[in-house]
Amino acid sequence: MAINDNNTDSNKSQKQEEKDLPKVVIFLPPPVFSLIGEESFASNKFLFLKAYDSQLPLLQFLSTHSKSIKAILSSGGAAVNADILQLLPEVGLVVTTSAGLNQIDIPECRRRGIKIANAGNVYSDDVADLAVGLLIDVLRKVSASDRYVRQGFWATKGDYPLGSKLGGKRVGIVGLGNIGREVAKRLEAFGCFVSYNSRKKKPYVSYPFYQNVCELAANCDALIICCGLSDETHHMINKQVLSALGKEGVIVNVGRGPIIDEKEMLRCLVQGEIAGAGLDVFENEPDVPKEFFALDNVVLSPHRAVFTPESEKNLSQLVVGNLEAFLSNKPLLSEYVD
Amino acid sequence: MAINDNNTDSNKSQKQEEKDLPKVVIFLPPPVFSLIGEESFASNKFLFLKAYDSQLPLLQFLSTHSKSIKAILSSGGAAVNADILQLLPEVGLVVTTSAGLNQIDIPECRRRGIKIANAGNVYSDDVADLAVGLLIDVLRKVSASDRYVRQGFWATKGDYPLGSKLGGKRVGIVGLGNIGREVAKRLEAFGCFVSYNSRKKKPYVSYPFYQNVCELAANCDALIICCGLSDETHHMINKQVLSALGKEGVIVNVGRGPIIDEKEMLRCLVQGEIAGAGLDVFENEPDVPKEFFALDNVVLSPHRAVFTPESEKNLSQLVVGNLEAFLSNKPLLSEYVD
Repeated sequence: MAINDNNTDSNKSQKQEEKDLPKVVIFLPPPVFSLIGEESFASNKFLFLKAYDSQLPLLQFLSTHSKSIKAILSSGGAAVNADILQLLPEVGLVVTTSAGLNQIDIPECRRRGIKIANAGNVYSDDVADLAVGLLIDVLRKVSASDRYVRQGFWATKGDYPLGSKLGGKRVGIVGLGNIGREVAKRLEAFGCFVSYNSRKKKPYVSYPFYQNVCELAANCDALIICCGLSDETHHMINKQVLSALGKEGVIVNVGRGPIIDEKEMLRCLVQGEIAGAGLDVFENEPDVPKEFFALDNVVLSPHRAVFTPESEKNLSQLVVGNLEAFLSNKPLLSEYVD
Repeated sequence: MAINDNNTDSNKSQKQEEKDLPKVVIFLPPPVFSLIGEESFASNKFLFLKAYDSQLPLLQFLSTHSKSIKAILSSGGAAVNADILQLLPEVGLVVTTSAGLNQIDIPECRRRGIKIANAGNVYSDDVADLAVGLLIDVLRKVSASDRYVRQGFWATKGDYPLGSKLGGKRVGIVGLGNIGREVAKRLEAFGCFVSYNSRKKKPYVSYPFYQNVCELAANCDALIICCGLSDETHHMINKQVLSALGKEGVIVNVGRGPIIDEKEMLRCLVQGEIAGAGLDVFENEPDVPKEFFALDNVVLSPHRAVFTPESEKNLSQLVVGNLEAFLSNKPLLSEYVD
């Protein structure tokens, strides 16, 4: 196709306009880019600056573009720490595509007056759906009995062992944020008794509150981990908590892998000290300890709780909306407040 | 341990008393006997007469005990038909351990004035839980991604494909009895839009009603089969219904296998004419067509929807309660009315 002079002129002025737009730096491609396409994040209010497309080492790249970078788009993999932030004095916002914020040095952002916007409620429904799905699966042995049928054992070895009833179970939710509340709402419809642990007792919440996660575990048949990862929650689910949960107890983790002492949980699962686990997250993803693979009392999900195409579209709107709001000095759509 | 004369005397009189008790005949051992123990069904108001413990052919056995048999305890496997009923003129009740009644000749029972008591609501919660579990599993690929992780593919091949969101899905419930209503209640908590098909529009139910199952399928993203098996429902889910459900649609069956034309459904699943299926029941159990085993868009459950130990205990109380009520001329606890 021939391009006439007029078009060339308008192309040139478009390039110049783009050059003048505020820049949003990205360190690593967020998984959502390949899932629903980068074009879903396009805006005429800013331009993405992709550090991962440059030959320069990250810190050098950031120094070079230091003045024009107004915001950071962060996903799970790449740290946003003090070393990076001190190179970017113009940055006023970190917006993430993840629900968790453990890659971000939050105190350093606070110190520098940098705002944070996370994925807000976008993921909550999907994560809650999978949490409930994993709980039903572990209790009613869905994946395990599917394996049994696929191996042809139903016809040759007879009936599969009974599962356990969901209704009437006492379910403890660890972390009653957006996700935890959505899990609780669903479990009430199944006739479960919900209680919870969180940093503070929540106002306007009638579920019994346990300040101590060990005490929560002792009073529950199942624990669902819905909290974020932080220094306080790292290995919060340890030998003592698992032992309090007991040999009839099951655990579901849709938070972050390192919240549970994985080695200790594995030992408990192998030795029957807890009854089962439904795990969407692991300590060292994507490497799942091979000892899990032989266990019929676990369901292993490859960190897919947050992902459905429907939600990713909502996410792209939220991310772009947060960036455009920030650049126009408007209130953020999903500002993270401690 | 020595037995003294007194004990022997009392044993004798106990035997005589037992002999005089009304008899409840059982053709085949109900699965629940081996699951939670026959002793859970013991009563001082009746005695079980086990046709399967006798050397005699069934009809001859029944003729021999014809006068003393007042009721039949029936489970899924053994037919209660006209040939059998005509040998048992004293029978006034058929009580089943199953939710379905397809093994019973209901019109013949009606003609003879024989009452029927089924498992009532005992199974409804468990069946509904599994139905929802299967729906989440199919949409969010839980079992399939568990297989992926167990094969070590997460670390070597990367992320597993996205599942589909449950919230906002239009779910059609086929058969809005006790089970269907429990499924609907749960799905509302997930933000699904429920509609239904049944023989008649239900009073006091606000979900949209479709008289025609094909029309229901055309207006839904998922169908959940919760109805019983009868001449009318046999192969009710046929090529036309599956085609109306369409290539994004999924189907869950916790009713009975033959309600779906299994061959046609298999073809649709293989050729992508529907998106997936969660199946607890099959046309020829326990033989599941091997072609299913290779499919990642199906979840195969070995007819375990109804079974948890907690419910089986409730069932034993209900069965014994029905038999004792009948033998004392009191109203049945869970009489089946057409």
